[in-house]
Amino acid sequence: MSKSWPGLVTHYRDRLRLSPHAPAITLLEGNTPLIPAPKVAERLGGDCEVFLKYEGLNPTGSFKDRGMTAAISQAVADGARAVICASTGNTAASAAAYAVRAGLECMVLIPDGKIALGKLAGAIAYGAKVIAISGSFDDGLRMVREVADRTQIALVNSVNPARLEGQKTAAWEVCEQLGRSPDWLCLPVGNAGNISAYWLGFTECGDCSCGSKPQLLGAQAAGSAPIVTGIRVDNPETRATAIRIGNPARWQQALTAIEESKGTILSVTDEEIFSAYHFLARKEGVFCEPSSAAGVAGLIKSVDAGRVVVKDKRIVCVLTGHGLKDPDSAVADAPEPTRIEANLDALMRVIDA
Amino acid sequence: MSKSWPGLVTHYRDRLRLSPHAPAITLLEGNTPLIPAPKVAERLGGDCEVFLKYEGLNPTGSFKDRGMTAAISQAVADGARAVICASTGNTAASAAAYAVRAGLECMVLIPDGKIALGKLAGAIAYGAKVIAISGSFDDGLRMVREVADRTQIALVNSVNPARLEGQKTAAWEVCEQLGRSPDWLCLPVGNAGNISAYWLGFTECGDCSCGSKPQLLGAQAAGSAPIVTGIRVDNPETRATAIRIGNPARWQQALTAIEESKGTILSVTDEEIFSAYHFLARKEGVFCEPSSAAGVAGLIKSVDAGRVVVKDKRIVCVLTGHGLKDPDSAVADAPEPTRIEANLDALMRVIDA
Repeated sequence: MSKSWPGLVTHYRDRLRLSPHAPAITLLEGNTPLIPAPKVAERLGGDCEVFLKYEGLNPTGSFKDRGMTAAISQAVADGARAVICASTGNTAASAAAYAVRAGLECMVLIPDGKIALGKLAGAIAYGAKVIAISGSFDDGLRMVREVADRTQIALVNSVNPARLEGQKTAAWEVCEQLGRSPDWLCLPVGNAGNISAYWLGFTECGDCSCGSKPQLLGAQAAGSAPIVTGIRVDNPETRATAIRIGNPARWQQALTAIEESKGTILSVTDEEIFSAYHFLARKEGVFCEPSSAAGVAGLIKSVDAGRVVVKDKRIVCVLTGHGLKDPDSAVADAPEPTRIEANLDALMRVIDA
Repeated sequence: MSKSWPGLVTHYRDRLRLSPHAPAITLLEGNTPLIPAPKVAERLGGDCEVFLKYEGLNPTGSFKDRGMTAAISQAVADGARAVICASTGNTAASAAAYAVRAGLECMVLIPDGKIALGKLAGAIAYGAKVIAISGSFDDGLRMVREVADRTQIALVNSVNPARLEGQKTAAWEVCEQLGRSPDWLCLPVGNAGNISAYWLGFTECGDCSCGSKPQLLGAQAAGSAPIVTGIRVDNPETRATAIRIGNPARWQQALTAIEESKGTILSVTDEEIFSAYHFLARKEGVFCEPSSAAGVAGLIKSVDAGRVVVKDKRIVCVLTGHGLKDPDSAVADAPEPTRIEANLDALMRVIDA
């Protein structure tokens, strides 16, 4: 069963719009688990099934690897001499890893001072050239687009169409794992590449047996919710750093996906995001990064408000990145460990045994 | 292909010594990628094939999940009211996650002040009760063994035989992924549970088509190499925290595995470990925790010294944990990011385009 998973470019090759001669630059990404979430289902009132698509188990710890294997494979086919991206962290790590795999230099632009350690650690570990700009993610994206226009350096942000080709495969995996399409698919929305890619995947799922398409539920952080409010956010703010994006590149495409799917997009507060984040780790045993929990937070909020009815529905929540991407958030509100001497009596006392 | 991976207890159920009525407490662990490592092969002189068994892609970020799904499943069958372990970090995170999944309380003992942030973050995130002791891992292990003897609290360290039942499945996956047994299997050795489990797996691999068994190459950190030197280390020291263990619980079993496999065990310095760690990330695009790189470091050292001949051999190196477990090590020696203003001219200058 496991033996021959070849990575998603090879596995889905004939369904991806990539150059025929593009090599598969792979770290065997994709094929991530779909974990049952009975406690979330219970929180929603029961009478439904909930699953977590745990994208944090991609090689660099986030869903970005799906798009990156495709984008870097295409960049090699196109003769790029290097790759560049703007990033809140996850894209940087992924671009850096796949660039290594392809033997290309990688440069990443990050907003100075606002990136979680675990995320920057990835890009640094893989040897990327990290450039911190005194500006936002959106500033960085504008800059790298201009660089790509003027040079032989390939842009690997999700404005690169190959990225969506790779990312859409997650929709197919979900259908294969469930045996059919879910009724709802819930996910965080930042730059809106992922929601666009999932919708692309579901609409191209004609040759699988999933039947109908899901309704999409997108969640933005309240301090960074341009698609919800219809207004670009010049200084987006949220502790969910991966979706701190004020001017999404795939804004219109996301709106189309939500409309076509008869779905919804809403904003969730940081408090609601972190509440879902802790719930997932402490009740389901699934540790994701804070932004990943936004989809679950949005689902809970929508159901509580009566805007979404989940009775008898099968719901998939996409957890976009691993909790280890942002260890600081995990330890931030935690009590200090209990400290004891190294003897049995001391231990028996604290465990109350 | 991916759709029905049910986690390793269910997948391998009839080959694991667990109570028949034990439920499968699972996060869909196992089924991890075996990534080709052409640059390592080149470093060894070519004429061989090298693969990385990337165990960091288990749900909590390390191979410990394999043993833990089995141990917690068995603990539930045994009617445990809680679980406890001593840990250098990875076991703690894994025990905490699977305890959540089973609805059991989890207590973890860690050596105070010597655990990497990413590792402690896991246990904290999953809501474990973390107890820091003024002693070593070995002290902690002694203490939790005594607690388990006196209470209804299940010990889930690798002295628990169910742990090895789960962990041995990695050997089977390797054989299935390669289509046969590797010639060498290289891995880090700390408490020696993993090397014992792999050997158990390979010796029980009779009904798969792998044929012969691999030679095992175990690597211990030079400051914490009791099995290599034959002398217990009272104050083990290494920056590879996951293998900082001076009195391995599976010491004799590891020696037997090495002897029976006609393998070898050697010590590698922290410098050699970190050199391999950086090589894997920067040349192969695979980011592991420092201790995980010890197997690769030991392989390189043995080949350079002429102690192991790899011509025409197929070699698997086990990377036991994800690099995100220890982000501090990734950023420790790294140059600061280049800082620039958010404008195109500044960017064009630094990328030399």
